[in-house]
Amino acid sequence: MNLVHLIFGRRLANSEMEGRRISWFEAVPAMGLDGLGSASYGPEAALTILAPLGAASLAYVGWVMAPIIVLLAILYMSYRQTVLAYQTNGGAYTVAKDNLGRHASLVAAAAIMIDYTLNVAVGISAGVGALTSTLPHLQPYTLHFCLAVLAVVTIANLRGTREAGLLFSAPTYVFMASFLGLCVVGVARILASGGHPHPIVAPPPLPHAAGAISAWLLLKAFSAGCTAMTGVEAVSNGVGAFKEPVADQAHRTLTIICVTLGLLLAGVAALAHGYGLTAMDQTKPGYQSVLSQLAAAVAGRGAVYDVAMASVLAVLCLSANTSFVAFPRLCRLVAEDGFLPRPFAIPGRRLVFSVGVVFLTVAAGGLLILFKGITDRLIPLFAIGAFLTFTMSQVGMVAHWRRQSGHNRARLAINAAGASVTSAALVVITVTKFVAGAWIVVLALPALFGLLLAIRRYYDRLDAQIGCIGPFAADERQPPTILVAFEGRNRMTDRAIAFAMSLSPDVIAIHLTRLEGPDEEEDSRAFRHTWKEQVADPLEAQGRTPPRLVLLAAPLRQIHKPLLEFIDKLDTRTPGRGVAVLIPELVLNHWWEIPLHARRADSLRHALLAHGGTRLNLITSPWRRSD
Amino acid sequence: MNLVHLIFGRRLANSEMEGRRISWFEAVPAMGLDGLGSASYGPEAALTILAPLGAASLAYVGWVMAPIIVLLAILYMSYRQTVLAYQTNGGAYTVAKDNLGRHASLVAAAAIMIDYTLNVAVGISAGVGALTSTLPHLQPYTLHFCLAVLAVVTIANLRGTREAGLLFSAPTYVFMASFLGLCVVGVARILASGGHPHPIVAPPPLPHAAGAISAWLLLKAFSAGCTAMTGVEAVSNGVGAFKEPVADQAHRTLTIICVTLGLLLAGVAALAHGYGLTAMDQTKPGYQSVLSQLAAAVAGRGAVYDVAMASVLAVLCLSANTSFVAFPRLCRLVAEDGFLPRPFAIPGRRLVFSVGVVFLTVAAGGLLILFKGITDRLIPLFAIGAFLTFTMSQVGMVAHWRRQSGHNRARLAINAAGASVTSAALVVITVTKFVAGAWIVVLALPALFGLLLAIRRYYDRLDAQIGCIGPFAADERQPPTILVAFEGRNRMTDRAIAFAMSLSPDVIAIHLTRLEGPDEEEDSRAFRHTWKEQVADPLEAQGRTPPRLVLLAAPLRQIHKPLLEFIDKLDTRTPGRGVAVLIPELVLNHWWEIPLHARRADSLRHALLAHGGTRLNLITSPWRRSD
Repeated sequence: MNLVHLIFGRRLANSEMEGRRISWFEAVPAMGLDGLGSASYGPEAALTILAPLGAASLAYVGWVMAPIIVLLAILYMSYRQTVLAYQTNGGAYTVAKDNLGRHASLVAAAAIMIDYTLNVAVGISAGVGALTSTLPHLQPYTLHFCLAVLAVVTIANLRGTREAGLLFSAPTYVFMASFLGLCVVGVARILASGGHPHPIVAPPPLPHAAGAISAWLLLKAFSAGCTAMTGVEAVSNGVGAFKEPVADQAHRTLTIICVTLGLLLAGVAALAHGYGLTAMDQTKPGYQSVLSQLAAAVAGRGAVYDVAMASVLAVLCLSANTSFVAFPRLCRLVAEDGFLPRPFAIPGRRLVFSVGVVFLTVAAGGLLILFKGITDRLIPLFAIGAFLTFTMSQVGMVAHWRRQSGHNRARLAINAAGASVTSAALVVITVTKFVAGAWIVVLALPALFGLLLAIRRYYDRLDAQIGCIGPFAADERQPPTILVAFEGRNRMTDRAIAFAMSLSPDVIAIHLTRLEGPDEEEDSRAFRHTWKEQVADPLEAQGRTPPRLVLLAAPLRQIHKPLLEFIDKLDTRTPGRGVAVLIPELVLNHWWEIPLHARRADSLRHALLAHGGTRLNLITSPWRRSD
Repeated sequence: MNLVHLIFGRRLANSEMEGRRISWFEAVPAMGLDGLGSASYGPEAALTILAPLGAASLAYVGWVMAPIIVLLAILYMSYRQTVLAYQTNGGAYTVAKDNLGRHASLVAAAAIMIDYTLNVAVGISAGVGALTSTLPHLQPYTLHFCLAVLAVVTIANLRGTREAGLLFSAPTYVFMASFLGLCVVGVARILASGGHPHPIVAPPPLPHAAGAISAWLLLKAFSAGCTAMTGVEAVSNGVGAFKEPVADQAHRTLTIICVTLGLLLAGVAALAHGYGLTAMDQTKPGYQSVLSQLAAAVAGRGAVYDVAMASVLAVLCLSANTSFVAFPRLCRLVAEDGFLPRPFAIPGRRLVFSVGVVFLTVAAGGLLILFKGITDRLIPLFAIGAFLTFTMSQVGMVAHWRRQSGHNRARLAINAAGASVTSAALVVITVTKFVAGAWIVVLALPALFGLLLAIRRYYDRLDAQIGCIGPFAADERQPPTILVAFEGRNRMTDRAIAFAMSLSPDVIAIHLTRLEGPDEEEDSRAFRHTWKEQVADPLEAQGRTPPRLVLLAAPLRQIHKPLLEFIDKLDTRTPGRGVAVLIPELVLNHWWEIPLHARRADSLRHALLAHGGTRLNLITSPWRRSD
């Protein structure tokens, strides 16, 4: 137990919840790692699509990145409003539930659940991939590194969102500072040099043009670049984690993440254009990422370069953390509404929703193991869930403002703009990525949606059976017949029989025989004689009714069958009377005692629970050793 | 359940035990595979040691094989006597227990348990190794084949010893017939040709001499050849499996196995000498086993060769079966004496001791996986356990005859001869193989011995606490206070409260609050009001005492702690009175329902079992859904 304490920290009381809430300082690393990390692969993905244009690609970088930045600005504005309107939780699930109804909310929930799971696997494998491309001799340990990062993120989040935020704050803020600095210096040099800066380390030469520009190519580049936006919605899903004033803290967090991300996207676009950077083929030797070319061009390959690139690695690896903050909170809401299993809504040892955390770890770990840590094929599946959620959230907010009386035209306009732009982007992304893997999401979404509905139906049926009752209406009842099942007399079974006699005047001692196979044939007359001498006679001498002794053979060595048959006979003889089986059970003090016992008490209990009729109750008389 | 039925067959009743017993026909494959299979590697191992002598080795084959065959004859004679004297089970464990005392019997048990486990791993990997050396493209799947063979042998033995014997009888009898035939034909040709037969396919030329003869070399060759004897003791351990007349069936089985093995050893030695066969280096290409050279020399590479070699492969692969027959029966005896966990003594679904079978599978499977299916290094460890057991058994029989009055001098002499020869062989084997791995057995033996003693000590302590009682002595007792733990009122909890009221007039309803974390703060006044209106008032109107309502908060979300504190307070208020906690439990009808429930009833039950005081009893009121 001390090890659990050491790894996860002490168990927190309900009353400590307030102290667990976080401010913007922890929230930026906790919720922003995914969004900020996107800055490293979003522009690169867009430039990769444009690369076949050769030198001409530089002319189009701005055309692709500008709408992405505008889209980000619209999302920022509309999420600001959402967080204000939904201060307990402003995720797409809640917004859609309130404004669009149950089915829309479940679509949003399914979409974002899929996306968060993918984000963990893709984020970690991308980060570790970047690491192993820097240090190629680590290549064979890709999967080990992936699982190790997953373990660190999981443990940090099982300790608490605040702990995870603090732990991951250093790489986050270093990343933000170093790349904002590089962009500012780079842009200043471009301006100072009249658009022709001198790179400290020249980027690789632009490739020869291998294709012509087309609207399809620009759309593909746009949709590839849109991956830069994933993770922006995390703040709205994580509102519940903030300390008071919630709206203020959430706004500040959202502002820091979105403004930094916007500046980084704009800066990378400007520097790519100014310095003539382009995406290289990742599968060829000598590959350098766009951010690496950028840092080398602006700062050379010195200490600044090393620190900046190390922070990129860390941010990528840890971008999974955003999912770990938002996913369990979303699942909790969905579970409270009965669409996910109830354990998702139960706060764990450290007041986080541990079941959600562990579920996410298992699902993402499964993906990592399945793909051996190389999850490149999952990247195309990635942005669809996020943009579907964006759209549901914006449409929900439009409905929200429309129901409110006047004054909200401006707000409605912002969300309507958001809704149209994100839905357009969703269509573009789905169409351009359909063959590359988006179809998987198109199949998985309705499956998950159906599962959520099925879970709710299960709970509804259960509630119909055991819930909804009026006044307590129990007839006065006789004590039940109590059957004490035992294999041989000892102090444990004597205690059990005595306990049964204190509960009911009608006790039957069931001696189970022939459990050990044919060699264990017992002399039943001898047993009956001893019983009379040792049990029945002393009790009668005290003037008490001794329990009736019944010997039951179990010729198939399954105890519960003859016992259930016996109970059936009892039922026909004394109908209406309750029956309880009392099982003496030896309590084991150590785990290593488990293989030393046949544990018949336990298996008898489970068999009776499963196969006993509706009137059968079970009593356990535990025997604890002093040890 | 149907799948279980299909794989393992229907559950057998105790009364079917008689029909499960086997005759010599099934016993030869069931118990003889190990011993007969040794004929393929025993002589080869001896010839490998002699190989450096080149052509001179042929002169010494007889000198090495003759004492081995004499030893086999002595073992045969003495085991015949043992089986006669111990008709229920004549294994070394029983013989040593009866005649040499507890510690000697445990040494024998530990030795034979280690040997049987090694035999499974080594036998299967040797057989599969022979298969993959014939069909080299199967090489990468070595481990898969090993585990598949292990699975087949395990399932056959879980179905029953008779089923395993029938299943494996074809390869066994084909092996015996074909090699006995080859030996007879070969010896006849040697005699007809005056010692210089003409091989149909000439064996590879003898290597040049690379060393000189020495006593040490002969001893090493002898101890290597002794592996041919492992498995001979299996019949004595498996006597319990035979049908009546037991001694007859066992004698016939022992005779068939030992005589066949002796003839094969003599035949191989004679043919090796006559045809000039020698062991080849297994690691070099073009390797042919001695049996393969022999079959080709006598019969050419036709259909006879193919059938004979296929039967060798099958016999080697299945030689593990002998362990599966003898190991569980040995473990059962040891467990009945309290030196192994009790589950080893419980007959399973098919009246075999399934725990022993599964344990052997897991242990041997672990070895196979650990060594990736190549267990060559374990072979040197192999014969020590067997010879230690031989010796213990023989010494025990000597003591046995000495205690009997007169007339047994001849028998005593045979066992004394067996004891001296096997103990001498044991010393030779241990010394010559010590560095190659025998030291592992020398370490493992005392460890297992200590474990067996520790297990018995555990049971002795347990018995001292709960066993050994006199007349039943329970005071008349009041019914206990019953605490019904529940989270919210529903039909399930109402039923539980009604049941509690039928058991005792003193019922306290414990409403557990704040389990769901700080957000679930409940209005206790509202709950008390509803309780009064819906439960207390209707009961009082009937003139019955309603249960007392207590609201217990679990600020750490662990139910058992506040409950145990409450019980402690109760105990000080009403000392001496028993306490029982009644837990309503929803019975799940399907495995997939498990993740849908928090299963608090179950975890509360386990926590109360583990941490409750000696006076705390538990009652389960199960709720079964009609579903």
